[in-house]
Amino acid sequence: MSERTQPRIGVVGLGTMGGAMAANLAKAGFPLTAWNRTPGRSHELEALGIDIAATPRALASTADIVLVCVSDTPDVEAVLFGPEGVAEGAAPGSLVIDCSTIDPAGSRRFAARLAEKGIGFVDAPVTGGSEGARNATLAILVGGAPADVERARPVLAAIGRTITHLGPVGSGQAAKAVNQVILAATYLGVAEGLVLALKAGLDPQQVVEALSGGAAQSWVLANRSGRMLANEYPLGFKVALHLKDLGIALDIARESGAVLPIAALVAQLEAGLVATGHGDDDMSALARAIRGLSGLEA
Amino acid sequence: MSERTQPRIGVVGLGTMGGAMAANLAKAGFPLTAWNRTPGRSHELEALGIDIAATPRALASTADIVLVCVSDTPDVEAVLFGPEGVAEGAAPGSLVIDCSTIDPAGSRRFAARLAEKGIGFVDAPVTGGSEGARNATLAILVGGAPADVERARPVLAAIGRTITHLGPVGSGQAAKAVNQVILAATYLGVAEGLVLALKAGLDPQQVVEALSGGAAQSWVLANRSGRMLANEYPLGFKVALHLKDLGIALDIARESGAVLPIAALVAQLEAGLVATGHGDDDMSALARAIRGLSGLEA
Repeated sequence: MSERTQPRIGVVGLGTMGGAMAANLAKAGFPLTAWNRTPGRSHELEALGIDIAATPRALASTADIVLVCVSDTPDVEAVLFGPEGVAEGAAPGSLVIDCSTIDPAGSRRFAARLAEKGIGFVDAPVTGGSEGARNATLAILVGGAPADVERARPVLAAIGRTITHLGPVGSGQAAKAVNQVILAATYLGVAEGLVLALKAGLDPQQVVEALSGGAAQSWVLANRSGRMLANEYPLGFKVALHLKDLGIALDIARESGAVLPIAALVAQLEAGLVATGHGDDDMSALARAIRGLSGLEA
Repeated sequence: MSERTQPRIGVVGLGTMGGAMAANLAKAGFPLTAWNRTPGRSHELEALGIDIAATPRALASTADIVLVCVSDTPDVEAVLFGPEGVAEGAAPGSLVIDCSTIDPAGSRRFAARLAEKGIGFVDAPVTGGSEGARNATLAILVGGAPADVERARPVLAAIGRTITHLGPVGSGQAAKAVNQVILAATYLGVAEGLVLALKAGLDPQQVVEALSGGAAQSWVLANRSGRMLANEYPLGFKVALHLKDLGIALDIARESGAVLPIAALVAQLEAGLVATGHGDDDMSALARAIRGLSGLEA
């Protein structure tokens, strides 16, 4: 452990989310090192005065806290435990914060392996998208031991607006899965409603406005119905990533005995979108599926 | 037509919705007569100075505008065209406003029959529930000829907050069907998310709070998740009525070629709730279905 008042942070993963988090941590005054599998936006971050490490191991050897933000369970496993991984470089007493969205069983497995080396772990997946990451307005869903979560809190406060500690390691991931299940239904429901409006000959934008003050109100209706009506799906949040997240939710469901018919249906429709080349669309492209089934331009 | 500045209104149907509308019309100063199939809340309304008519025909013979608020298409047909019905008493130049939620094809049929007698018709189904009816904050979805809608507007302004004219007769009903489809998905999605949270061992109330600021935000999550967690479903809006409304939406979908998988799934689950004695529960009781499938108390 360093004796600096601001712990030194290492950020692993400089994609849309991790890159924005690194920039916000630098702005908040944390001494920072970063690493990315591909060069990506390293140049931008160097311009912000952020050192780029050669390997996750090198990064971890200088960091008090390592923040990971990559795509999926195997990616987290690779950067933590692969050759030249974080676990080879991190000192006992350091802490890993995983902001990736992965399987909670994976989080628990990784936490146990790190604990053998005296390294703490919290899972801290986020909601709020690329805009939330840029503006540091993310909602952060945290699982971990209370002392680890308290150590993580000042770091998380620099990248998000609300920090909720939901229980032991894995709890943040489970709550994120709940979020993705609710999103699945809300997006598909708005898509079905808009297609019905179009097929019934209504002005769908007028319908959206008329319904927005009532029980049908949602963030999706307010913020994503326009894309569905234009049939254009700029990011946002990729279909392929939401499908990955629904896979996690359906794994938790199978293991715990929860039955989630809409989540399963949406996963099927999203798999179809990925198979037909729409995996990089924003997930509002679920409207493509309903439009296509209904004989509208998709 | 009367020469009074305030037209005389006749209200047919004094249930939860129609009774509240009648009370608000009386408060707004409209001279008023009312009729209900069963005595219902006639006594309350007499206390407000509202005359009770013996038949819809008698009511219509003294009214400039007849406002109908009953349950389903056959109920509207019966009060308009049955023996001692509105059509037998209404004068040429009078207007029928139908606030019931019915099949838009029915609305068009009834409008055509009334037009043969020189009687106008607008469909004006509402959203906002019993609370919206009491507080005159309903959203009103209106279909009809522009001149008829303008005549209806001062009456509707006394019972609701937003009045949207969506097109010719039937358009209000089609927009209401869109609302009910979006509700179906939003309710079931929140139910699935909460059951997943419970099965994963999370504090579901804490999860609701953590997710409420993000993309999963909706009126249903904010206002109905508590009932789903308590597994208690006071009204609200009855499962049996929402099932009736989804039937209308699925009829429009079949006729127009819209494909609505979640709406069809929710209709099946609601039919199961009705068959097992839960048709009079609030529609948040969709959570019973997911709880039951998942082995939780339902």
